[in-house]
Amino acid sequence: MEYRELDVNSVLDYLKNIKDVMSYFNGDDLSVDEIGDGNLNYVYKISSLQNPELALILKQAVPYLRCVGEDFPLSRDRMTYEIRALQKFYSIFPSFIPKIYHASEDMSLVVMEFLAKHVIMRKGLIEKTEYKNFSEHISTYLSATLFYTSSLFLNSSDKRALIDKFNGNTELCKLSEDLVFSFAFMSHETNDNENVKNNPQAKKLFSDAEFKERVLELKYKFMTQSDALLHGDLHTGSIMINEDETYVIDPEFAFVGPFGFDIGALLANLVHNYIYHSLVTNDKEFQAWLLKTIKEVLEKFSDKFLSFWQKAHTSALLVEGYLDEPALQNYKNFFIKNILRDSVGFAGCKMARRVFGVAGVEEIRGIEDKSLRAEAEAMVLKIAREFVIKHDKIDTIDEILEIIKVNSAR
Amino acid sequence: MEYRELDVNSVLDYLKNIKDVMSYFNGDDLSVDEIGDGNLNYVYKISSLQNPELALILKQAVPYLRCVGEDFPLSRDRMTYEIRALQKFYSIFPSFIPKIYHASEDMSLVVMEFLAKHVIMRKGLIEKTEYKNFSEHISTYLSATLFYTSSLFLNSSDKRALIDKFNGNTELCKLSEDLVFSFAFMSHETNDNENVKNNPQAKKLFSDAEFKERVLELKYKFMTQSDALLHGDLHTGSIMINEDETYVIDPEFAFVGPFGFDIGALLANLVHNYIYHSLVTNDKEFQAWLLKTIKEVLEKFSDKFLSFWQKAHTSALLVEGYLDEPALQNYKNFFIKNILRDSVGFAGCKMARRVFGVAGVEEIRGIEDKSLRAEAEAMVLKIAREFVIKHDKIDTIDEILEIIKVNSAR
Repeated sequence: MEYRELDVNSVLDYLKNIKDVMSYFNGDDLSVDEIGDGNLNYVYKISSLQNPELALILKQAVPYLRCVGEDFPLSRDRMTYEIRALQKFYSIFPSFIPKIYHASEDMSLVVMEFLAKHVIMRKGLIEKTEYKNFSEHISTYLSATLFYTSSLFLNSSDKRALIDKFNGNTELCKLSEDLVFSFAFMSHETNDNENVKNNPQAKKLFSDAEFKERVLELKYKFMTQSDALLHGDLHTGSIMINEDETYVIDPEFAFVGPFGFDIGALLANLVHNYIYHSLVTNDKEFQAWLLKTIKEVLEKFSDKFLSFWQKAHTSALLVEGYLDEPALQNYKNFFIKNILRDSVGFAGCKMARRVFGVAGVEEIRGIEDKSLRAEAEAMVLKIAREFVIKHDKIDTIDEILEIIKVNSAR
Repeated sequence: MEYRELDVNSVLDYLKNIKDVMSYFNGDDLSVDEIGDGNLNYVYKISSLQNPELALILKQAVPYLRCVGEDFPLSRDRMTYEIRALQKFYSIFPSFIPKIYHASEDMSLVVMEFLAKHVIMRKGLIEKTEYKNFSEHISTYLSATLFYTSSLFLNSSDKRALIDKFNGNTELCKLSEDLVFSFAFMSHETNDNENVKNNPQAKKLFSDAEFKERVLELKYKFMTQSDALLHGDLHTGSIMINEDETYVIDPEFAFVGPFGFDIGALLANLVHNYIYHSLVTNDKEFQAWLLKTIKEVLEKFSDKFLSFWQKAHTSALLVEGYLDEPALQNYKNFFIKNILRDSVGFAGCKMARRVFGVAGVEEIRGIEDKSLRAEAEAMVLKIAREFVIKHDKIDTIDEILEIIKVNSAR
């Protein structure tokens, strides 16, 4: 089918030929509302008039940046990779991915479950909601998606086929290369230059050669290390959550990259939230919950990743019988430690880029009091620097927590 | 054009429609001889009857392993990657690649320059021929092919396009994964089991958990580190050489992999030859020339790689102005040191696999005296082990030479 841009009026016309969608609604009359407040795409909610509980989301990419307009072209191919990633991740562990009812790469659109009872995790965390099941859920999501798309599980040819499917996500990978690893640490037009101007912290960061050299190492890993299929942008705004359920959405940045990048993104965003509560709400209990959550996420990730590995006897990497059990355990422990180290390094880059880079996070850039915001930014940069400089020497999860605690004390 | 297998009789019929080949021969009458002694492909020499100096090679892949027969299927796709690699490398530095007159991925064949005045380097080295220009040539070849196909030179989308072109070389990559990094270090039916049986050195190697854990790290790098387009099988049998010229042929194992793999393959093969002359000819002068050559290859590679880098101001990795000059130099020196370290590690794997693995090298497996061969194998394994265990601690090229010298003293 040839691509055409849908609008509120043409959505239903398109959907009436999609059997799976129509049978979901049992032939009810439908209404359409545009609900997207995203930057990139158009999002419509399709609801049954007879039974408003029945609702689906239709998300369509347009060949430009929606929030800016047609003058800022951005290939709609990104939806191709979002569809492929949603389908792949769903096939691995459906509990954490919205159910897909219809997808068309030609039309750059996907129709999926409407998550009515969930909030964007970043908002929930700002409002001090403790999600008791989050560490359990996200550690399963991370360990399963990363392990089952890696050379530790796949055979050599399936791994190459996976790379084939995502290698073309050039535009969004390039965006990460530029925005996460480069522009935010130098004078650049895309930065938040109102804040950069005359800011001693920006001056210090931009001339911090030691930090920037280490960032370059991590950027190189991001570009060349093909460990596993990543979400690619796993911040707390890509997670829809409530007490019972956790969904990971919006994987348009998906590509085969380093294990540590998704874990690092999540860690960075939890630390941002921790800093917010250190300075703005000063809620010690919630801070303690956040630290405990970080620890649990990393510990459970490691345990689950290793237990998936325990069950996989042959893969592209391992020929059965190659190593005896003690040596194999040793190798696996070393391997998982390296994943955690990379995660901490990537978390540092991800944190630091939110200070002066084009895209901020609500927890830091949203602080209205200027001096408090500057204080928050100093904390972000201190922790980020420690993460980046020390990441490859870290031996335990407690050392990660220690860096957060020591550098966020007022 | 649909694939069909050519033979001595049909080659000329096929070529008469290929303008570039016909114009090379100026309309002369042609003769065809099958000259291939390779394991994989059919090779024909096409000569002018009027002017025997005019000659080309036609190489065609068949969908099975030629040396075994149709019962051992091997996809002829390998020729697709050989053609692409020859063309890519030729476009980077034509002096070291045979000139291509015609190539067809559909027909899995290539017609190229006949190297009449060159010998296979392994044979020349066994006969103690000193190739004065070799280190100069091969260091240019290595630095240019690796640098100009890496993220240090290419932009992000060209790098991904390069990966796209070679990612499908699954079958031969898998062959390397199995044969270079796995089967040769464990009991396996493909090994040279006549030598393995009751051999204390094999027993020791197969149970050397420390060595095998480190090999697994290197295998993981081989499978997942997408640095640059590699030849993929750069032993001295893939080099045609004389006093003046050096040609690198047979890149059918080409893929985007770790920088150190080609350098390591070459290093391994020079060390094999060094061990051969330590034990069989006992020619000190030639041994000294080999050591000097190894040193020069690695030094010149580093210098040239850095000097190419000096001229490239922006790339997927580097945004101009990101780092000041001293920090950038520091980063580059660190980067090149890591390439050398990886090269040493890969050299260790490549050396050790030639002892008990399916494919030996003439310098070691060709030694007829059984006890001398066992002594050579012990030397190979000692040096290989040092290379693999110590590779990531190596700081200077002299340390590499020291490992070779110390462990080959009788």
